[in-house]
Amino acid sequence: MEYILSERVKTLKPSAIREIFKYAADPTVVSLSAGNPAPEAFPVKAIAEISAKIFENEPIAALQYSVTEGYAPLRKAVAERMKSRYNIGTDNDDIIITSGAQQVMDLITKSTVNEGDTVICEAPSFIGSLNSFRSYNARLCGIPLESDGMNIEALENALKNEKNVRFIYIISNFQNPSGVTTSFEKRVKIYELAKKYNVMILEDDPYGELRIKGENVPPIKSLDKDGIVAYAGSFSKVLSPGMRLGYVIAPKEIVQKMVVCKQGEDVHTNAWAQLVAHRFMTEYDFEAHLEGLRDIYRKKVNFCTELLDKYLVPNKISYQPIDGGLFIWCKLPEGADMTDFCKQAVLRKVCVVPGNAFLTDEKEQCSSFRINFSTPTDEQLEKGIKILGELAKEVL
Amino acid sequence: MEYILSERVKTLKPSAIREIFKYAADPTVVSLSAGNPAPEAFPVKAIAEISAKIFENEPIAALQYSVTEGYAPLRKAVAERMKSRYNIGTDNDDIIITSGAQQVMDLITKSTVNEGDTVICEAPSFIGSLNSFRSYNARLCGIPLESDGMNIEALENALKNEKNVRFIYIISNFQNPSGVTTSFEKRVKIYELAKKYNVMILEDDPYGELRIKGENVPPIKSLDKDGIVAYAGSFSKVLSPGMRLGYVIAPKEIVQKMVVCKQGEDVHTNAWAQLVAHRFMTEYDFEAHLEGLRDIYRKKVNFCTELLDKYLVPNKISYQPIDGGLFIWCKLPEGADMTDFCKQAVLRKVCVVPGNAFLTDEKEQCSSFRINFSTPTDEQLEKGIKILGELAKEVL
Repeated sequence: MEYILSERVKTLKPSAIREIFKYAADPTVVSLSAGNPAPEAFPVKAIAEISAKIFENEPIAALQYSVTEGYAPLRKAVAERMKSRYNIGTDNDDIIITSGAQQVMDLITKSTVNEGDTVICEAPSFIGSLNSFRSYNARLCGIPLESDGMNIEALENALKNEKNVRFIYIISNFQNPSGVTTSFEKRVKIYELAKKYNVMILEDDPYGELRIKGENVPPIKSLDKDGIVAYAGSFSKVLSPGMRLGYVIAPKEIVQKMVVCKQGEDVHTNAWAQLVAHRFMTEYDFEAHLEGLRDIYRKKVNFCTELLDKYLVPNKISYQPIDGGLFIWCKLPEGADMTDFCKQAVLRKVCVVPGNAFLTDEKEQCSSFRINFSTPTDEQLEKGIKILGELAKEVL
Repeated sequence: MEYILSERVKTLKPSAIREIFKYAADPTVVSLSAGNPAPEAFPVKAIAEISAKIFENEPIAALQYSVTEGYAPLRKAVAERMKSRYNIGTDNDDIIITSGAQQVMDLITKSTVNEGDTVICEAPSFIGSLNSFRSYNARLCGIPLESDGMNIEALENALKNEKNVRFIYIISNFQNPSGVTTSFEKRVKIYELAKKYNVMILEDDPYGELRIKGENVPPIKSLDKDGIVAYAGSFSKVLSPGMRLGYVIAPKEIVQKMVVCKQGEDVHTNAWAQLVAHRFMTEYDFEAHLEGLRDIYRKKVNFCTELLDKYLVPNKISYQPIDGGLFIWCKLPEGADMTDFCKQAVLRKVCVVPGNAFLTDEKEQCSSFRINFSTPTDEQLEKGIKILGELAKEVL
């Protein structure tokens, strides 16, 4: 049989990162290409205790069908915490628990973007989100990212000239892949522009709690007096990604449609995971746990930065210092063949992610690549960065 | 702000069943409107044991990111069982683990149906699936369901006359809501017609293991020499719906695109649930567990049937006898106002689902309603059916 595929998936490809994982599966290869939280960051003991209690005292709550919007006590706990700590959420907003923050990208696109409509995003940006937008045949318009956020002039030009722009997608803290945190000044400007052009903002913030130095920058959502921002949060980096637990706080009118779409997608999010997250937030010291995570990642970032400074020759590979998150964005000299460099690195058993994977058009020129420091051990990290430095000296 | 919604969700409404749940939430109301497995059907002790072991011996496997296709040992266990027991799956097929079988409906529609393309389904059919198809702006074409499956003539007419038919959606065993099992003869005819008109079949089989009498009818997928059938299976009725665990066995070309779509939807299915299901299938006596479930439901069906025979006057409410599944389809006399009857029932504190909720066009005339016997207790079931019988005598 000749299979007929929908137009929206014909050009959709598996994530380039997933393809790279094929090499990374080789145990002799040092993988700096993942985005996994450090294994020591999982509160295994607490999760084991909570699970045991749930199956002893209220197994049916974890095993029976639940409601699409999410487990009410968890929705309440998250909404209250985000309100009190970050001033996120208004009376006009509602919250739903999703199957990872990835599902927020899917549901909001399904609810607000017709095929051919435009989504504005940072360039580079997270490939998983870009693929989610692409899977609804959205047109992607990338705005160059500077060290303090999007180029504002380019953003206004796009808002002025692009047709049917439905939302601006922005990872405001420790952006994946660039590590960039959008400054408060730019957050205000982006918010004002979105308001002026009557376009929503989708603020994706999976790494916000992983700040290892400096002051928190108020989320764009905290500025949202006009009901134009949808905020996507995640438990993947603060509890466990395997649980697939995220949430969205957004204007009720949008959330209502997202709920109907979620009903048709997976009915509701895994109930056990929702109960565990709720108990962990309310019966354990969640804030102390986050402090512990920041300690873990602070050590890792500092160690990684030392290695980069030790092994890389600056005029061969430069990198963008970070204040948090899981990734560091490395840049080859203008004109260097980045793709070839990444291939050579694989031959020497080090895996990184070529930067063009994160562009709206993968064929565009890009001289950067992404490394991750949370997944490898210290030994692996040192080995990998040393090899990258040697390779750069030889071939660049 | 005036929110702009996509065309595909503008007319999408929350499931009528979910609306009815509002009444059912009143503890004084007897709900015969749910579709929940019986609470005593969950293997709580085994799940508790397995979870404890996982968090002791391999917590990271349950908590870290996993692969989109699903946990490989679970994929293997399911594929092998379905092959050996039901002859499902060929060398041309692949399997992915999904977040409930509901996600299969979503992913296959996303992968194969352009907006405006047609999906053929049984009339009536499961509203959750219909809403999933609708959420991609599919045109639904309902084929009248007879006591042994779709009307074959109407099916061939539709295949001949409808444009861009992408697949035929069929719940082959103990259909929701009608309870109908498609006969082997009709399965063969439907397969041959699909082949003739070069259209795929989506066979949804969440209730197949819940047969309480008679012989299993071979799945349509077992006839699939031509690679035209996608088979959706579920753990919701045989393990736990709260886990959100399903799977699809389908031709590789389609599965590949579904995997890319799943990546953008939720990255992967909850890892803990996948590990638990795998251990339960391989380290416990899964077949004995299923036999136990059938015993539970056999008793419930028999009890419910006795009540229907005792309290309903046949020329007021008739019902379709069932060989398995969770639902019984009741019919009022031709011309009776079914919607009004269901409303009156709610006033007397019994909740059933009006049959038109399951039609491709809810405004069409329908004289049936659906009751569920797996969720209520014996006392609730008797109370509810007695009230329905009294109401029928009074108002019909």
